[in-house]
Amino acid sequence: MLEPEFEKLYSEMEQCHVKPLWLAERSVNPSQPQPKTVPWLWKWSQLSNFARRAGELVTLARGGDRRAMGLANPGLGGAPYATNTLWAAVQWLNAREVAPAHRHTAQAIRFMIDGQGAYTTVQGDKIYLERGDFAINPPWHWHDHGSEGDESAVWMDALDVPLNNYLDAPFFEHSAQDVQHVTALIDESVLKYGIGQLRPAWEQPAVRYSPLSVYKWQVTERALNNLARVAASPFDDVALEYTNPHTGRPVMDTMTCWIQMIRPGVHTKAHRQVNSAVYHVVEGRGATIIGGIRFDWEQGDIFVIPSWTYHEHLNESKGERAILFSAQDTPVLVALGKYREEALTTSNGFQTVKETFDVEKALAYG
Amino acid sequence: MLEPEFEKLYSEMEQCHVKPLWLAERSVNPSQPQPKTVPWLWKWSQLSNFARRAGELVTLARGGDRRAMGLANPGLGGAPYATNTLWAAVQWLNAREVAPAHRHTAQAIRFMIDGQGAYTTVQGDKIYLERGDFAINPPWHWHDHGSEGDESAVWMDALDVPLNNYLDAPFFEHSAQDVQHVTALIDESVLKYGIGQLRPAWEQPAVRYSPLSVYKWQVTERALNNLARVAASPFDDVALEYTNPHTGRPVMDTMTCWIQMIRPGVHTKAHRQVNSAVYHVVEGRGATIIGGIRFDWEQGDIFVIPSWTYHEHLNESKGERAILFSAQDTPVLVALGKYREEALTTSNGFQTVKETFDVEKALAYG
Amino acid sequence: MLEPEFEKLYSEMEQCHVKPLWLAERSVNPSQPQPKTVPWLWKWSQLSNFARRAGELVTLARGGDRRAMGLANPGLGGAPYATNTLWAAVQWLNAREVAPAHRHTAQAIRFMIDGQGAYTTVQGDKIYLERGDFAINPPWHWHDHGSEGDESAVWMDALDVPLNNYLDAPFFEHSAQDVQHVTALIDESVLKYGIGQLRPAWEQPAVRYSPLSVYKWQVTERALNNLARVAASPFDDVALEYTNPHTGRPVMDTMTCWIQMIRPGVHTKAHRQVNSAVYHVVEGRGATIIGGIRFDWEQGDIFVIPSWTYHEHLNESKGERAILFSAQDTPVLVALGKYREEALTTSNGFQTVKETFDVEKALAYG
Amino acid sequence: MLEPEFEKLYSEMEQCHVKPLWLAERSVNPSQPQPKTVPWLWKWSQLSNFARRAGELVTLARGGDRRAMGLANPGLGGAPYATNTLWAAVQWLNAREVAPAHRHTAQAIRFMIDGQGAYTTVQGDKIYLERGDFAINPPWHWHDHGSEGDESAVWMDALDVPLNNYLDAPFFEHSAQDVQHVTALIDESVLKYGIGQLRPAWEQPAVRYSPLSVYKWQVTERALNNLARVAASPFDDVALEYTNPHTGRPVMDTMTCWIQMIRPGVHTKAHRQVNSAVYHVVEGRGATIIGGIRFDWEQGDIFVIPSWTYHEHLNESKGERAILFSAQDTPVLVALGKYREEALTTSNGFQTVKETFDVEKALAYG
Repeated sequence: MLEPEFEKLYSEMEQCHVKPLWLAERSVNPSQPQPKTVPWLWKWSQLSNFARRAGELVTLARGGDRRAMGLANPGLGGAPYATNTLWAAVQWLNAREVAPAHRHTAQAIRFMIDGQGAYTTVQGDKIYLERGDFAINPPWHWHDHGSEGDESAVWMDALDVPLNNYLDAPFFEHSAQDVQHVTALIDESVLKYGIGQLRPAWEQPAVRYSPLSVYKWQVTERALNNLARVAASPFDDVALEYTNPHTGRPVMDTMTCWIQMIRPGVHTKAHRQVNSAVYHVVEGRGATIIGGIRFDWEQGDIFVIPSWTYHEHLNESKGERAILFSAQDTPVLVALGKYREEALTTSNGFQTVKETFDVEKALAYG
Repeated sequence: MLEPEFEKLYSEMEQCHVKPLWLAERSVNPSQPQPKTVPWLWKWSQLSNFARRAGELVTLARGGDRRAMGLANPGLGGAPYATNTLWAAVQWLNAREVAPAHRHTAQAIRFMIDGQGAYTTVQGDKIYLERGDFAINPPWHWHDHGSEGDESAVWMDALDVPLNNYLDAPFFEHSAQDVQHVTALIDESVLKYGIGQLRPAWEQPAVRYSPLSVYKWQVTERALNNLARVAASPFDDVALEYTNPHTGRPVMDTMTCWIQMIRPGVHTKAHRQVNSAVYHVVEGRGATIIGGIRFDWEQGDIFVIPSWTYHEHLNESKGERAILFSAQDTPVLVALGKYREEALTTSNGFQTVKETFDVEKALAYG
Repeated sequence: MLEPEFEKLYSEMEQCHVKPLWLAERSVNPSQPQPKTVPWLWKWSQLSNFARRAGELVTLARGGDRRAMGLANPGLGGAPYATNTLWAAVQWLNAREVAPAHRHTAQAIRFMIDGQGAYTTVQGDKIYLERGDFAINPPWHWHDHGSEGDESAVWMDALDVPLNNYLDAPFFEHSAQDVQHVTALIDESVLKYGIGQLRPAWEQPAVRYSPLSVYKWQVTERALNNLARVAASPFDDVALEYTNPHTGRPVMDTMTCWIQMIRPGVHTKAHRQVNSAVYHVVEGRGATIIGGIRFDWEQGDIFVIPSWTYHEHLNESKGERAILFSAQDTPVLVALGKYREEALTTSNGFQTVKETFDVEKALAYG
Repeated sequence: MLEPEFEKLYSEMEQCHVKPLWLAERSVNPSQPQPKTVPWLWKWSQLSNFARRAGELVTLARGGDRRAMGLANPGLGGAPYATNTLWAAVQWLNAREVAPAHRHTAQAIRFMIDGQGAYTTVQGDKIYLERGDFAINPPWHWHDHGSEGDESAVWMDALDVPLNNYLDAPFFEHSAQDVQHVTALIDESVLKYGIGQLRPAWEQPAVRYSPLSVYKWQVTERALNNLARVAASPFDDVALEYTNPHTGRPVMDTMTCWIQMIRPGVHTKAHRQVNSAVYHVVEGRGATIIGGIRFDWEQGDIFVIPSWTYHEHLNESKGERAILFSAQDTPVLVALGKYREEALTTSNGFQTVKETFDVEKALAYG
């Protein structure tokens, strides 16, 4: 029990919106990160079911600008965010549908899961997207999406919405016209900048954002196969970072994206970083052990790794490769002088598995 | 009322931690910043009263490492933070007392309000601080404070604690020894680097953090007086940014600090930025109109300007200058490509005052 | 005639190695560049004849480390330099011959003209070179060349030797072993870094020099064809700069290299820059008008454009493309704040041709 | 004697301006720098005598724009250059005289030796210069000099004229008006930017050139005295580099300047760099051993240290400090990836003195 003088002082402070540090020191200054973001996994079987049904039920008029289904990390108290800094969603577009033009300061990327004839137009530059393509959407650039074919399209979005809102920096605007006037040739940026070791000699480099609107899957897959012949990381196996070819830096100020091949039989060592990440399984099956919990995954699944949490990847298949795409907030931590990483040094670098994530059971408890 | 299929879909989604964007689009993507941080002002009469009483009642042993009283913005739901990104506090040290050595990844600055014989030792570099001195504390640098004289000392702290915690990046460590071994001469960094236009020729520049441990008031005041003779900003009058003389950049990755003289009779025009700031009144009296509310201030007061909120400063005195110190999160916004600023264009650039902040009334309602 | 006091003063000054500026102001400070480098062209018919004969007559033992034939610009007073800053040469290697390992601070590039089975090993990294391949050799990197096949090899070298010597910066060292131990897989750098928009995620970027040892012709040609579909420069037609994919900057600190396609029927406009360049005709025929002199060129020829001299390119063929490779000292001028460029504004941007370069006549006068 | 086929080949090559590398390999690729610049020293007794007499004899009309007396390094074949890259001169201005406005791309600095009431106006910014002041003149900035008092003025100039001419980059222009219109307050840049640790908060930093027109002696001397209390270099004693406070970089792209105090009794160790430098003795007397030759110097003398030549400084006085100012081409070497330095490792780091420079004898032989 507090002596009366203390009680009086603390009560007056409280009244005046003053908080003694000494009553809350460890919550203000924890000895290490205590992320509220929890490791989690959403099954593609459920996500695709939701997406298909939303495609049938929800019109874009009713559904706002985008038929996007956000993944809400259970640790974040109901906020519709995948991690503390990243919003991630599955977005569905019906055949011959248009998601009308708008722009925002949130920084966005898209990874194409399925669809033929789908396109996106970013600031007048129209590109067609196929499975495996990775597209960027720099902040405050107009963009509309559409599907010209007979097929629906589905992709994963990742945006820095939580960070942008946390920083009190969001701006959003609808365009007067649903579909932008196309000012560039189809795939112009790929033709001009797509061979990253040569640049139009008369142009200034694109310093702030990648000049490439889309990183085509065919090229990405070739890069993975090439790299697999010569090198791999003990922690991430055959891992490539998408870069701005004009600077070698990440494609966004607040996000970087990776494509990763976990080769058959590979079990990587555990490490952890001060960052958070959203992973999407492009192909194959395998598992990731995150903070001692084993998450088994297969094609289409999406999972999350929180900050400062050990993680390691496994592909137990005999002959099938697994491909992971991820969006990470690493550039934020690096830019602000806050990035750290550390390998696990016990048990030869592998975690002890404490439990296996069972989505049914988890949801029942959730 | 929802049709049954919708209800079923939304309920299953909720169960699986999936959130349709179209049900919450404007909260996910607001059309402009809607800061929870509110404009606020803490009176020095109250702060200094609390500080003095805490000095009498609370021992550092009982009060943890630091006798710091955090300013809790009423908009932030009880969190002990001054703005969304900045923690600010008044810290009190009794005569001949020691605040023991620790280190953390949160980035810190201090502005000296009063005290003789107070010192701070940062990573072995000991400096004495006097009224008006501005000291920096780079992340993960050991630091202890003390007062060798017969007087207590009081200063303002600003740290990026909220940001650091939000980013899941905090680390904190106590030192085995309360008082660091001093490895540099007293004021060595001032003697080596304090004349910012000349640098020891054989040394590499200090790129990550300012090589200066302290920016002395005498020098700062001279800079203000010099600048006042030749130039001023229409929005901030005679405003200087403390810089790292080896790079010209802000003194921290996540914070920049300003010293500002509002000359007698000056009423600046209103503008707003995507950033947040904590101001401390070093000297004089005046007012700042923030989002249409007039905050009158006098020496010692501390007030807050939230993101994207118009603000303008007044010094209605006939002959007395007013001096403001501030810590701002601008480098974060700039590094992440999110900074914007805008001048008010109506009413000749001045806001209409809707009300005057009355701390008694505000606290009564708070 | 000088008055006696002047004569006395000037004579004493001369004796003491003091030179009055006012007697030589325009030579010290010319109103614009007056390059000693002259526009010139070396015919491949002659160069290849010399190279083949040197291959027969001169052993590498006798011919030093390299059987390289330097192009000596007639304006440079007998110095073996192509321009003020660039040394350029044709180098010949007989079948199964080795040019032994050495290293130097001069910065070097090579463009492959012909040969099968030729290789170069740079700092343990061995690559095979084919026609059209462009290879870099960072300063102070060990390198040896060889030909494993039944064919001789021939390529163009460009080095910053004149600049390096002018700056009193040359170092040179022979290796104890003629042929380096190969430490990397064949073409390892191409496999790791050759798709410039993706980078091994666990590696730091190669900031100082390009991580790519060789830019393969097949990739380069694809980039030219791609660019030709979307854009071209009015001055240089379809022009690409080779870049370091990890920085987007030129491949060397002191040289940048371009590959250029002049499409059939194209006649570019004239411009001039503060820089100097050595061009090699990779394919086709055409002409370049340099300072009012028309230089007709065909496959294999090498020509020079001096600083601040207008130049424009022509391909008068009906259907054959022309390909030019060039090495330029532009990064030097840019780094030192000395780069300028200017378009010709008279005669609709085209020069008046005053004469046609006739190498026979020129040599007769030379 | 050459066999006939060789003779024929070499003769044809010569005729065609082709030079076999193997006949000249060591001159093209020396194993280490062989500067033509020689160590040399000009006595102030002679320089000031020439300057004074030129002031009497030569009008500025007759003497061109500037009454500057260039120091011609005896190793450079009669060129009026102090080193391979630097032009240095003593410039004299009579009382109430004007050196009319012009501009050039050569980069210039001035160090004031004597004079009251002398001023320089750079791009409309007028400053008065006193003994010890260091002024910069960015490229292509208009500048005129004058003396308003009753005294003549004398200073040392250093420009990158040789480099600028070597790179074929010189431009020069006379102004229509001899004396520029003054657009800034006197000493405005000193008032705005002279306290290098604080910067006008609303301005963008001056990235390309220092925002400071002049570095005042009083400030410079204070910096020397401060540094002397805490640190010194074993090779250069108390040495400071003038920097751009907005970037921490050298004041020019092609030159950096140092101020150095050699304290009484100090004898520094020898080292050498790939760079060249011109030194001016501001105060005191001492000696510098350059490449084994001892150069004794006293106030006003100017001497030269060539590239890759060991040098060490001595102040044998009991109580008098010696002050050296120098201009060096180091930024060029660093920017182009060509800088190296090396300490002498024999004889405890001191050179063996082979001879003492005797200017009379040297001139007699010269």
